[in-house]
Order: sequence, then C-alpha cells, then structure tokens
Amino acid sequence: MERTRQLAGTIRESDVERAVILKGWVQKRRDLGGLIFIDLRDRSGVVQTVFSPAQSEDALKIAESIRSEYVVEIHGQVVKRQAGTVNDKMDTGTIEVLVSDVTILNEAKNPPFTVLDGAEISEDVRLKYRYLDLRRESMQETFKLRHKASQVMRQFLNDEGYLEMETPMLTKSTPEGARDYLVPSRVHEGHFYALPQSPQLFKQLIMVSGFERYFQFARCFRDEDLRADRQPEFTQIDIETSFMTSDEIMAMTEQMMVKLMKEVKGVDIETPLPRISYDDAMNRFGSDKPDTRFGLELVDLSELVKDAGFKVFSDAVEGGGKVSAINVSQQAAAFSRKDIDKLTEFVKIYGAKGLAWLKVEDEGIKGPIAKFFTEAASNAIVQSMDAKPGDLLVFVADKTQVVHDSLGALRQKLAKELDLIDQSLFNFLWVTDWPLLEYDEDHGRYFAAHHPFTLPVEEDLEKLTSDPANVKAAAYDIVLNGFELGGGSLRIYKKELQERMFEVLGFTKEEAQEQFEFLMQALEYGAPPHGGIALGFDRLVMLLAGKTNLRDTILFPKTASASDPLTNAPGTVSEAQLDELHLQLKKSKGM
Amino acid sequence: MERTRQLAGTIRESDVERAVILKGWVQKRRDLGGLIFIDLRDRSGVVQTVFSPAQSEDALKIAESIRSEYVVEIHGQVVKRQAGTVNDKMDTGTIEVLVSDVTILNEAKNPPFTVLDGAEISEDVRLKYRYLDLRRESMQETFKLRHKASQVMRQFLNDEGYLEMETPMLTKSTPEGARDYLVPSRVHEGHFYALPQSPQLFKQLIMVSGFERYFQFARCFRDEDLRADRQPEFTQIDIETSFMTSDEIMAMTEQMMVKLMKEVKGVDIETPLPRISYDDAMNRFGSDKPDTRFGLELVDLSELVKDAGFKVFSDAVEGGGKVSAINVSQQAAAFSRKDIDKLTEFVKIYGAKGLAWLKVEDEGIKGPIAKFFTEAASNAIVQSMDAKPGDLLVFVADKTQVVHDSLGALRQKLAKELDLIDQSLFNFLWVTDWPLLEYDEDHGRYFAAHHPFTLPVEEDLEKLTSDPANVKAAAYDIVLNGFELGGGSLRIYKKELQERMFEVLGFTKEEAQEQFEFLMQALEYGAPPHGGIALGFDRLVMLLAGKTNLRDTILFPKTASASDPLTNAPGTVSEAQLDELHLQLKKSKGM
Repeated sequence: MERTRQLAGTIRESDVERAVILKGWVQKRRDLGGLIFIDLRDRSGVVQTVFSPAQSEDALKIAESIRSEYVVEIHGQVVKRQAGTVNDKMDTGTIEVLVSDVTILNEAKNPPFTVLDGAEISEDVRLKYRYLDLRRESMQETFKLRHKASQVMRQFLNDEGYLEMETPMLTKSTPEGARDYLVPSRVHEGHFYALPQSPQLFKQLIMVSGFERYFQFARCFRDEDLRADRQPEFTQIDIETSFMTSDEIMAMTEQMMVKLMKEVKGVDIETPLPRISYDDAMNRFGSDKPDTRFGLELVDLSELVKDAGFKVFSDAVEGGGKVSAINVSQQAAAFSRKDIDKLTEFVKIYGAKGLAWLKVEDEGIKGPIAKFFTEAASNAIVQSMDAKPGDLLVFVADKTQVVHDSLGALRQKLAKELDLIDQSLFNFLWVTDWPLLEYDEDHGRYFAAHHPFTLPVEEDLEKLTSDPANVKAAAYDIVLNGFELGGGSLRIYKKELQERMFEVLGFTKEEAQEQFEFLMQALEYGAPPHGGIALGFDRLVMLLAGKTNLRDTILFPKTASASDPLTNAPGTVSEAQLDELHLQLKKSKGM
Repeated sequence: MERTRQLAGTIRESDVERAVILKGWVQKRRDLGGLIFIDLRDRSGVVQTVFSPAQSEDALKIAESIRSEYVVEIHGQVVKRQAGTVNDKMDTGTIEVLVSDVTILNEAKNPPFTVLDGAEISEDVRLKYRYLDLRRESMQETFKLRHKASQVMRQFLNDEGYLEMETPMLTKSTPEGARDYLVPSRVHEGHFYALPQSPQLFKQLIMVSGFERYFQFARCFRDEDLRADRQPEFTQIDIETSFMTSDEIMAMTEQMMVKLMKEVKGVDIETPLPRISYDDAMNRFGSDKPDTRFGLELVDLSELVKDAGFKVFSDAVEGGGKVSAINVSQQAAAFSRKDIDKLTEFVKIYGAKGLAWLKVEDEGIKGPIAKFFTEAASNAIVQSMDAKPGDLLVFVADKTQVVHDSLGALRQKLAKELDLIDQSLFNFLWVTDWPLLEYDEDHGRYFAAHHPFTLPVEEDLEKLTSDPANVKAAAYDIVLNGFELGGGSLRIYKKELQERMFEVLGFTKEEAQEQFEFLMQALEYGAPPHGGIALGFDRLVMLLAGKTNLRDTILFPKTASASDPLTNAPGTVSEAQLDELHLQLKKSKGM
C-alpha cells in the first residue's frame, strides 16, 4: 500500500535498469571525484545512491547540502556497479542507484553520536536520544526479533486453543510480594488502585470463569530497588489452563519453545527437556537456575570428610552444614597462590569464611590442607572428584546455603574466565520439586516460596501443618543458560486448602478473608483444577538476541533510578492535580 | 496435550461406542424415572450424560449429590439417543454419554444467579460474581470473538510489515487532553508518573527511530467522569507508519476491516469505503459519526426560508444560525400532537427552543406554522424535502450547533422508534476534512480538535495564524453504524510548524519547550513524514458482538464510579505505603 516506493535493502541485480523511488535516512555521504555517494537507509536496509553531473546537476547541487540522518526522497535508476566497486558485505552491494531527482523531506542536526553499531556511547546519552539509538542496526534487529517471537508464540497458543485476554491494570493492592505502584483515586477519597505485579488472581478467576485456556502478554509492575536486570515495568507471557497436569503444562511449554527456537533462531531443541529437582540443582550447581553449558559441578564430600580428621571440614558437617568441592580440571598449573587468593576473596562476598584447595599431582594431593588427610581419605577425595594429575580442587565448608551460593557463583566466574561456555548452545531445563514454603528468621514465620496460591503436592498435604518446611510444591521453573525464563505451578482450587495455606502463612482468618475475599468466594462456586506458567518476555528476547542487558530489549526503558532521561518521567504535577486526588506532599524528615 | 480428555461440545454421532473422559461443569441435573441426566459444559459446549443403575450404581449414587456448577470428571461411553429424545438445538443432540464413573473435582455453592443467557441480573451482582457471569454462553462467545478479532488484525498487520511494539505505562503527565491517572514515585520525592492516555508521542518517536511501521494493542487510561460507554482503562489498536499518505493509511485500514469482517463475521465489505466531509456529515446527519443504515437526513432550508416571512426561521438564519428539517416519511397520521410535543421536549435537551412541524396532505401543508408560508414557499419546502402526502416534516431553527445536535439526536431516536434500522448492516464510512482547531469561549483560545500534533493540510498552512478557525486537518475518522471506531491523522514532522502550532494554542515558547522538549528535539534529528490511526478495540468488539454495553466486552470492567465490585478496587493502603511515597491524605473541605 505504498505503491510507488521501493525498499532500499531489497534492490538486487535483477532490478537493474528499473526506475525506483526511495525514501529514507542518509546513512553516510561521500564526495569523490565530482560525484556524491549517499548510502540511503530505510527499515529494510541500505543501498548506495550516486549523484553525478551527467545525471542531474540539480540533484547534485541539492546533495551537497545533505548531511547524515537527513530524510530524503530519491528518484533514480538501478545500475550495476563497476567491477572494482562491488561491496560483498552489503546485500545490495552489486548495484547502485543513479539519482535523477532528490527531495529533502526533513533536515537533521548533527547527531550526538553516529547511528552505527559499535560506537561506544554512555547509556544515559543513548536513553536521552533513544530515537537515534534505536536507528542502529542491532537495535532494529532486536525489535524485529521481539516482534517475531511474540507472533510465533501467539500463533502457537492460538492453535492450542488458548484465548488472548486482557486483565485490568487498575487493581487492588495486596500485601504479599514486592512493593506495589499505587494510583490514587479521584472519585474515592483516600483510596488507591495498584498496578498489577502479575495477573495471578485474575488469571485464576478466568479459570473459574470456565475459559479453560488463557494467555496474555501482560505488563507487570514492581516498585523495587532496581538492579541491572530489573525494570519497574516488564512484560510476561502469562498462561493459565484448567484440567491439565504439571507434566502436560510443561510439555505444552516445551512445544512452544521448540517452535520459537526453530522459527526465530533456526535452532532445533530436543524434547523432553532435562528436568532436575531443586535439591539436585542446589547440590550440583549451587543454583536454582543452573547453567549446564559447562561442567565444574559441585561435589558433596560431606559424608567422606566428616570423620577424615580435618576439623574445619568436620565442624561444618557436624554443625548442620556441608562441604562441597569443584574440580577445576587441568588448571592446577595455571592458578598461582595469588590467583587462588583472589578466588578466596570472591567467595567471601557470598559469606564463605574461606576457600580450601588442593592440587592433584602424580604423587597425590598437594596444598596447605593436604596434610590433614590420610592416604585413604585423600584417595577417596580424588576418586569422588574424578580428579586427575593437573587438576585444581577448591572446597567450601560452611552452612549449606553459603556453600551453594559461594560455589555456585565461583562456578560461573571460573567458566567465564576459563572460556568454558559454548555460546552457540541454548540449554533449556526444568527445575522441579520446589519447597512450598521458606522460613524467614526475621519475621519468624513461613513465606510462600512462589506465591500463596501454589498447590502443595498431593503426598505432602498432611505435612502442611506438622512439617511445613518439608512440603514440596507442584511448581516448575524453566531455565535457559543459567537464567530463569519463567515459572509456574498448579494452583490451590479448594477453599479449605487455601484457608489452611493462609493459616500456615500467619494470616488470621479475618485478614485472609478481607484481602482475598473474592478469591475465597470464587473457590466456592465451582473452581476447576488449574495451573499455568509465566515467562519473562524481556529476558527471553535478551537471550535470543544475544544481549546482556534487559534495557536493550525494551523500547523505552527506565534507568536504575526508575527514571526516563528521554521524557524526564517522573515529573512534578500541579497543586490542582494533587487537590483533585485528595493528596498533599509530605516533606521527608530533615527537610 | 490433554491426551485422554474429550471436549464435550465436539462429540458427534461418529463417536458412538467410543469410551470418553469428560471434564467440566454441571449445567443442569434432572432426575427422571430412576435415571439422572447431567448436562456437562466445558469450553467447547454441552453434552448430555446419563447415569443409570444398569451402568453403575456407584456413579448414580454420586450423581445424586451433584448440584449445578459442580466440577466433575466423567468416564463413559457415547451412545445414540433414542428417536424421541433427539435435541435438534444442540450440536451434540443426537448422542449422549452413558456414565460408568464420575469424580467430583470440586463442589459449588448454589450460585446467586443461573449461569444461563437471558437471566435478568443487576449489573452490580454480575460484576461482583463476574466469574459466574462470564460462564454464560454469550459472554464466552464475546471473548472468543475478541480473541479472534485481535489475532486476525495482528496477522494482517504482521503481513503488512508492521512490528508489534510496547510503549511504557509509566510516562510523564502532559497538560493537554483529559485528566491523567498519576503514579507517585518512591525514588523521586514529589514526582509522579502518569499512565498514558494514548501512546501518541511514543509512537511518533518510534517513527523518528526509523521503524516505519508500528502497531500495538495499547492499554490507555483516562480519569474522566464516566458515562455508560466509557471505562477508565481501555484498549486501542494503535498504528503508525512513515512515508504514507492519508489515502494510503485509509486504504490499509480498509483492507484490515475487510479481512476482519470476513473472518470474524463472514461479511463482505465493499471498498473503498464511502467518505464524507465533516461539514457534510454535520449538515446531512447532524453528527460527526453518522449512522447511514437509515435515511431521515437533515435538509438545510436556510436559503429557502430566510425571506419566506416566518420570523422565527428568518431570525435564526439572520443571526448566523440555520434552519434544517427532517422528513419523517409517511408518519403524519401516526404522530398526534401529543407525540410531537414529546419530540419537542426531546430536542430541548439539546438546547433547541422548539420543534416546528408540518404535515403534508394532498391539498398542501398543514400545521400551526403553515399559515406563515406563501404557496410558492410551501411548494418549495415540499420540493426540497422530497415530501409526499402523508409525510411529517419537523424543523429546528437555531444556532448551527443546536440545529445539528438536536436534529442529529432526533434522527437517531426516530429511527429506533420507527424500527428503521437494518441490524444486519455494517455501514463503515470515513469522515474527512476535519477542522484543525476549535475555539473555546470559556478559555478564550483555540484547542486542537484532535491533538496538537495533527498536521494541517498543505493548502491551509498559510491560514494557521491569520484564520485558524478555517484550517483543515489531515485527519480522518472511521465510523461504523453511528459509532466512532477510531481516528487518525498525519502528524507534524517539522519543528518550526510544531512551534507555530503550540503558539496558536497559546503556549509560550518556554511552556512548549518544557513540556514537549523531547518531541521538539526528536523533530530536529531527521523525523520522517508520518501518520497513523487508532481504533477503539473494546467498541469494535462491542459492535461485532452485537452488544450495546462496553462492559460486556471487557473481562473485568469498572462501574460508572470507576470501582470494581469484585476485588473492591480501589482500596485503602497503609500509612507506611504513603510514607514511602512522601504523601499524606488531605482532608477535603468540610471534613
């Protein structure tokens, strides 16, 4: 429906001699021997255009005034490039357009940075001039990929009978979970809406409504202190279904991933995806989102070393902790004491008191702690670690969580530094058998590990009151290359069980009733067994596009202080606006 | 991926003798001669199941305890119904399922209303128990249609090279337009985000970013006093494109509507759609969104009657107003004086001082004002109105806007009462040639008729300062059956023109700079000519589904006071939450 225009990046040798009309941006202008060359860019790519006195004196004259990023309309004819000037790197590299007419549609000031990939630009400047930043090829490609990924998944879900449905953004604040963004009501004095942290309760209500299969690309909001990989608003692919088992929901998700990876990346994913229990993931990788593209697995040596005579190790095990080790294969020679000291400093960030180490040589183990072990014990360690001469073994003996956190992080660090990660791999896996509850020492009560609506597994139901710490959840997380892509669970669908769950979480009956009245009521009117999954769309795009920063996958992102250097949001508002909302500013202490 | 389950509504005679597993809701239970019949409903429809002592005593016993809206799993065998019991109204009416086993998955209290279409239920109750309301067949169908419409349009836009992109929800408050919903910032004391009224400026920035073709199913927010057809949050199909003319954008939109109507309604729409100028729409229909499914057009008689001797008419015309009339064909006999008095009361709502009328008889015009016209004048009126004996003519003489508003509304009212509207029609049309600006007497300045970024038509550019009232906009609205489906325009893409526009709107240079700095800056760095359109998705679904209330097309809507009886949003929040946001409540006067 732009009948006369040709897209720059689509012109080929077969178009030679055709008259074309191009519209786009000036990527680059070069003056050469009385001719002017302009690389013209539009959404499809770039083509070289040539202004010559022989073709048009007028056009040439105009071309002299044209600068980078001007918007122009060019009329011309496609010609073959001369042999020596062919550019193999361009799709349009064998042709150029001889210009007969040019119109400047809009001028452009000299941009604060060149609109080319590879330029080093501070993030603040990139965000302030986001409209220029987004013109760069890698950004254009990322958002084309984002579009395509969303269409592929929508098509898949549509084919499977899921309905795309929209839940409200102006909802009610709930106390569990992260901090809500609030929206003051003008009509209801002193009352506030909350922006949704996820459509969790609404998607459960959709199941109670009998739609059975729902999805949404849902905008979600969390007013948290930001880290590099967090944004105040983010998009999740939200899926909920009735009457399906965990296995069926996981299988459906896998099929969606297969289709996505094939159509967007041309990569074949084998299914079923590997599954690992939460406990195994922690024991073997020190992480609930293990990156399995490399080895360096943790080995639990607690049983082996607890009576071996090295007090630091046996004390850790006796105190309820553990001892684990990583075999840094064939790196004994590469790591000096100084190098190992650095690793020790690193694990201390995670609370470890130290990092013990051994080097394996032909004659046996060597290192400061070698003397504490009998030959039998040292042989057992070597065998358990599958160690060979030349290997470096590193140990942490501590509380279980510290061992997992520190060695899990060390594993990642070593893999990066030793370049052990095959970047072409897409290692998906499921983490299953999650604990339902986590005890919080500070609050002296249990919190839901996922959320308070997660269904406990059938066989642990009786332990819910007597032994809450050991109840497993019917929950599953999907992990890609060490990132949590998303998670899901079956949900509680009987009122009595939901009431017991709130009790375990320390809610009084009145609190539960007041805050979740509508859910409790809905569960009484024929709620089907249901469950679902939510995938982080921004992160998924980040991983597919090979990016390392979420901000590169969000069109207009916020900075780490939740502001937008482009529009200067958030901003001040008028007194009259606040009056209408029945609010006034409160000066903070000391002001 | 639910390998063992069969959907209730899909069972046919070809399935007879098959063993099936069904899961769903109990629509109805009937006990009859020792047998129990349960109509089982799932997302696909309804099937009749039969419990008999011969088949299973156990199942029959359980069935006795089953009530409406229980969730059950049924195992059974498909059998042909006996000749006399076939139900032609059901897709599954020739078969039934003989039950061998039943499990109650969840119980249900007796619902506050039956989950069947046609039940009269107050809207508050419907919204409080929305999850039951949504189980009704007509609601299920509406949201299936909504899903399908969104997929069809997405597919169309994808095929045309448009990228689906997400713009921020946490944006900056802008002074023009409706009232913003505000979101206080925790990090930036005294600062607020605003929820977007539309992604207008962001989609323009996307064009400056060089993506050329963008769309989004965008959630938008307006904190207005609600009417029946308004919601605080709504969804618009937001489309923007670079380098296209108005005609090209309209043609693209038409093709999308053709595809939508064909695939969702099976209706063929002829294109190009009719176009009518804003002035013609007002003169002929008294409305900028004319319903052309019926006649009753307004006829402008000003020229004809201004010197005809009837002072009320000539005064109106001389005072700068007009006289228009509607021919209510062949209704002279049906309308008593009392009926006409009622019409007079009706037009007074719209500011009209009265409604003049004439009845056409074989001998000429009759009625209280007939005596004021010469035979020539009365003949001219009859001729202009294309009037025949038996017709009723009604007149309003007043200020132009009053004439249009009152006769426009009267036209709608008469069409409904006289049943003149063919409900099977889908009359799309474009309204074009809109005024760019509207003068506001109260504020003593011009306001943008659409928004301040609308491009004036080329030929009126010079009048922008000298004669702003007569500048036309490059804008177009699409209308369906008397509803505004959406509107669009080309946008200003040169900084100088945008500056002049802000001047005309009474902004100082500083105000314009401060509030729209990022837009003004973006226009300096190579902004392409661009434009777009936004369609109201909720309203489109309403019209396609044959509904009359927007709330029936939104999953979890708000009431007229912007609250949600289901979740009780908005709600109160804790002092601590307000503290973190640096806010306190302000008591309203008199409290």
